[in-house]
Amino acid sequence: MTHSVLALVRTAVVAGVLVAAACAPADPLPSWNDGAAKQAIVQFVGDVTRPGAATFVPVPERIAVFDNDGTLWAEQPLYFQLAFVFDRVKALAARHPEWRARQPFKGILEGDLRAALAGGEAAVGQLLMATHTGMTTTEFDSIVGDWIATARHPRFARPYTDLIYQPMLELLRYLRANGFKTFIVSGGGVDFMRVWTERVYGIPPEQVVGSYGVTRFELRDGVPVLVKEPKLDFVDDGPGKPAGIHRFIGRRPVLAFGNSDGDHQMLQWAAAGGGPRFVGLVHHTDAEREYAYDRASHIGRLDMALDEATAKGWTVVSMKDDWRRIFPE
Amino acid sequence: MTHSVLALVRTAVVAGVLVAAACAPADPLPSWNDGAAKQAIVQFVGDVTRPGAATFVPVPERIAVFDNDGTLWAEQPLYFQLAFVFDRVKALAARHPEWRARQPFKGILEGDLRAALAGGEAAVGQLLMATHTGMTTTEFDSIVGDWIATARHPRFARPYTDLIYQPMLELLRYLRANGFKTFIVSGGGVDFMRVWTERVYGIPPEQVVGSYGVTRFELRDGVPVLVKEPKLDFVDDGPGKPAGIHRFIGRRPVLAFGNSDGDHQMLQWAAAGGGPRFVGLVHHTDAEREYAYDRASHIGRLDMALDEATAKGWTVVSMKDDWRRIFPE
Repeated sequence: MTHSVLALVRTAVVAGVLVAAACAPADPLPSWNDGAAKQAIVQFVGDVTRPGAATFVPVPERIAVFDNDGTLWAEQPLYFQLAFVFDRVKALAARHPEWRARQPFKGILEGDLRAALAGGEAAVGQLLMATHTGMTTTEFDSIVGDWIATARHPRFARPYTDLIYQPMLELLRYLRANGFKTFIVSGGGVDFMRVWTERVYGIPPEQVVGSYGVTRFELRDGVPVLVKEPKLDFVDDGPGKPAGIHRFIGRRPVLAFGNSDGDHQMLQWAAAGGGPRFVGLVHHTDAEREYAYDRASHIGRLDMALDEATAKGWTVVSMKDDWRRIFPE
Repeated sequence: MTHSVLALVRTAVVAGVLVAAACAPADPLPSWNDGAAKQAIVQFVGDVTRPGAATFVPVPERIAVFDNDGTLWAEQPLYFQLAFVFDRVKALAARHPEWRARQPFKGILEGDLRAALAGGEAAVGQLLMATHTGMTTTEFDSIVGDWIATARHPRFARPYTDLIYQPMLELLRYLRANGFKTFIVSGGGVDFMRVWTERVYGIPPEQVVGSYGVTRFELRDGVPVLVKEPKLDFVDDGPGKPAGIHRFIGRRPVLAFGNSDGDHQMLQWAAAGGGPRFVGLVHHTDAEREYAYDRASHIGRLDMALDEATAKGWTVVSMKDDWRRIFPE
């Protein structure tokens, strides 16, 4: 080949590559490494959206549910809502001098979380009632909004809403672009989450399912308000998750994503429907970029659900191997 | 004018009328008579959708809530869900010989509703537990589906789902075409309604808020089910309606429609938000085509909400005057 012919071929190849790149559909999941997990997701979305396919799912039935803590955003070293609780206890302490001598408040005010949480669930319940009730729903929205805008994560020194998972954001968008309705189904408080989920995940309040307490309607000088009462009504965790899905959504999801045993029954419930199903688990395997924990963790323990995922062929996403990036830039 | 010129003019006029008719936007509310109610609806929708207007409401906040019984479908001579209850008691009686001697069951089996309902709320509660619990959610869906397909209204001799209000169907569609998300917020059972609301109103299960009981998750031979427990959890009526809206939807509606005092607090709650609001009441004034009732009715009593509607300038829709047609053809 002469030099000029070679140049011509080279130009043609480059042009061909450029054209191919321009025409290939943009990767909807750029933060996912190529691998079995990403492939399973793309395969599933293709299957349920292909008209005429036996696996086709009509748009109204494309319900996708996601746990929040540990699935859409981080949950270590403590559920972020607990950080909110602790900050609120400190902010309210001046109005409650008796807290200095009483657990679980005393421990928080003295920076001794171990002492504060020694009382287990009852202690957490007391803290939730002290920080999440007694105000109107509108007042609570402002309190959460102020906190989420200013609080910083102890390790990453970034707002908590920065510690959402970029690959999951892409997955949420990809699903919505394919006719799915995306829901959060979390053990967290529904009133706590709804303040920021629309801005952060693009998930509107009416698509957030979570734990909640009783509210009381009253007229204050003729103005109707809802007061958050110190009475826990529903815990949307474990077997509560399928119950919460039934109560709030009223149909069975075709896709469910979790990361812990608290999501186990939700995943079982989604998996047991007829037709194509996608059941996924985020496995925290990346101590360097995020955290590594599973069977032995107090927060987000993943044990029985991991065994069932392995046995049933659910998709286990290894954060370290499957995710190119963890958090948004 | 000569005959031929006259013919020409006539042709031109006819053509002009035809063109005008072809170009005029189709009336989105053809079953509504022209009048203040229709005008208020069209005005409101125009106000909230006009870009740049001070009254503009972004699409995600266009939440519209509708009571069901008496607002979207009829509710006389008895709430239709009670007809379902009575039919179920009869269907189940063979399995419960003890019911022949025990109220409220005895009264239903003997056709003496007055005796059956003499026990008031407690009697209704017993009937609901006997007919709405003990089965899985999937089984209950089938039971309701079978009933709604076969039961007939005593006066109109048509399926209950034919006794929906055509003008309200048009309103639902008109709102959705203008970016609204339409919700039902009903005192009726959420599991009872969700079986048919999507087909009948175009309102999907996840946009139906109602009363509900506790469900229990269990594995039966490895298959997860939700069992409807004999425990009422939430009554979505009166002051429960704003609480239900907060719990399920998580934001305040900009449009609310009801027909009875059971909707009063929901209407107050919607009305009290900032920005443009539409608050409507269906007033049953048409004994001939449907029913006429308000302050003295046991079912769907409309008294205090009617007074407040008058005082506050809410839109009161007179079925007799404002609706050209009541039911779909």
